[in-house]
Amino acid sequence: MTNHYSLPISFDLEAYLKQKQDLINTNLKRIFDTVKRRSAGSLDAAMAYSIMAGGKRVRPILCLAAAETVADGDITATAMATACALEMIHTYSLIHDDLPAMDNDDIRRGKPTCHVKFNEATAILAGDALLTLAFDVLSDRVTASDKKKTAPSMENQLKIIHMIASAAGWRGMIEGQVQDMESEGKKLDIDALKALHLLKTGALIQAAVMAGVILGGGNHRQMEMMSAYAHNIGLAFQVTDDILNVEGDPVVMGKAAGTDFSRSKNTYPALLGMTDSKDYANELIEKALAALSGFNYRADPLRAIAHYIITRER
Amino acid sequence: MTNHYSLPISFDLEAYLKQKQDLINTNLKRIFDTVKRRSAGSLDAAMAYSIMAGGKRVRPILCLAAAETVADGDITATAMATACALEMIHTYSLIHDDLPAMDNDDIRRGKPTCHVKFNEATAILAGDALLTLAFDVLSDRVTASDKKKTAPSMENQLKIIHMIASAAGWRGMIEGQVQDMESEGKKLDIDALKALHLLKTGALIQAAVMAGVILGGGNHRQMEMMSAYAHNIGLAFQVTDDILNVEGDPVVMGKAAGTDFSRSKNTYPALLGMTDSKDYANELIEKALAALSGFNYRADPLRAIAHYIITRER
Repeated sequence: MTNHYSLPISFDLEAYLKQKQDLINTNLKRIFDTVKRRSAGSLDAAMAYSIMAGGKRVRPILCLAAAETVADGDITATAMATACALEMIHTYSLIHDDLPAMDNDDIRRGKPTCHVKFNEATAILAGDALLTLAFDVLSDRVTASDKKKTAPSMENQLKIIHMIASAAGWRGMIEGQVQDMESEGKKLDIDALKALHLLKTGALIQAAVMAGVILGGGNHRQMEMMSAYAHNIGLAFQVTDDILNVEGDPVVMGKAAGTDFSRSKNTYPALLGMTDSKDYANELIEKALAALSGFNYRADPLRAIAHYIITRER
Repeated sequence: MTNHYSLPISFDLEAYLKQKQDLINTNLKRIFDTVKRRSAGSLDAAMAYSIMAGGKRVRPILCLAAAETVADGDITATAMATACALEMIHTYSLIHDDLPAMDNDDIRRGKPTCHVKFNEATAILAGDALLTLAFDVLSDRVTASDKKKTAPSMENQLKIIHMIASAAGWRGMIEGQVQDMESEGKKLDIDALKALHLLKTGALIQAAVMAGVILGGGNHRQMEMMSAYAHNIGLAFQVTDDILNVEGDPVVMGKAAGTDFSRSKNTYPALLGMTDSKDYANELIEKALAALSGFNYRADPLRAIAHYIITRER
């Protein structure tokens, strides 16, 4: 792979991701400790089990990184509720995707999936509750991260709720999941596969980045650049997922490899071959980085994340 | 049953319910026609199938009736998006409750349940999509009912989203469903059963009424009176459901009778006996009507609905 773009050489992504993950985990833990204190049964346990199962927190980190790129000053406290809500929606979608009626996966992030650990009914309801809690947190006028008045403006709050609900629903993630399900065993062409993934994974990644831009007070031109960035990393993320599903180390990934093939799922490697799939992922990341060329060093985390997306091992 | 309260004799509830149902159905149909135009697969079909399956529209009607009781002038256009969203949340909860892993019901409102008509995966996703669409509609700055600027104030919109998310989630409906599931086969006392139902059905009914009061611009005293009304009709609704499950005509109800007993569910008739259950329902409705005594004739629809809740046949 030839690098036509300049990567931020001096930027320590590992430390950045770790710091953000810790911050997000602390805030999620605070929210779920409250759920636990006020709830009794298995619902809170199942919700907390799945959300604290060691996800990479890609969507909340993208939201925070986008907010920090465009904001004057520290925006983390204001953006944290949105970041946490994005992770709740992502986690709910994984719980439901793993169900026996859907992908029927037993292992996720190296641990038993929610319906295996608890039971199917509890997993369905824990997913429902995480999705609902996301909107609870998003509409709160006091942010989840602290009790100071750091909530976004009401206008921004409503914009973000609307954008996330749209991206997560029938116009976005859920429609993508349905199309994915219904295309198993049928052969899609590359455009159809791209369209499917722009819905299934792309929409929520796009919403995460754009929510960050809104929270950071980004202008119209910044919105457009970030939108192009998000579009390309969203696709690259899925292409890499497909590559990892074939080549990945199950131990590192925390789930079985080769499952797409055995389910005759439409994937980039199956459609383009492995070499072209990797080239395509690289090309997408180059486009994502080109979209950021109007930003200064403050976009370095986003640049490093773009690179990370295709070099990660899980 | 002795009537200690005065029912609005001259009020034609049947015509009122029919008019509101038609209005709500027209608006829901408009929303789901848009979904259909822009979507392709089975997701939109499953969503529309379940929501247009002939529900009584109790929650949206309560919202509209409460708004009209406290508002100056016609509030229907402003309240319609919230009313529709409440029905989406109610419908999603029914789709998920009917799933094989939950109540495993084949018939609902006289028709095959969503997972029977489509399949389990589609039913799970259609429920998810209805829940998500509710928040999409609630956060829209243009109401679903028309393209004029009749949206509620941003403050009211956020209040309502937060209240509904809270009522529908781990603090409310979903926790109630989990408790209901986990108490099957165990004997609850009457207080535990009440607490369970205040979560499972009461919370969303309460949210429907209170959203109406917020939309109508009700003051603090009106909030309190309406809250007491909602609390009591919410419980009465569930007591009557339990009674109908034993005594109801399956043809009128559109679902099987006697299913609670065969599942050894905790019900009011099982706990109190049939006569005391009916007395209890009447007592709750008397309390609900007493709570409305500070309102004039404009609360007549709410009074008539309270009476309807315990006299309905399905």
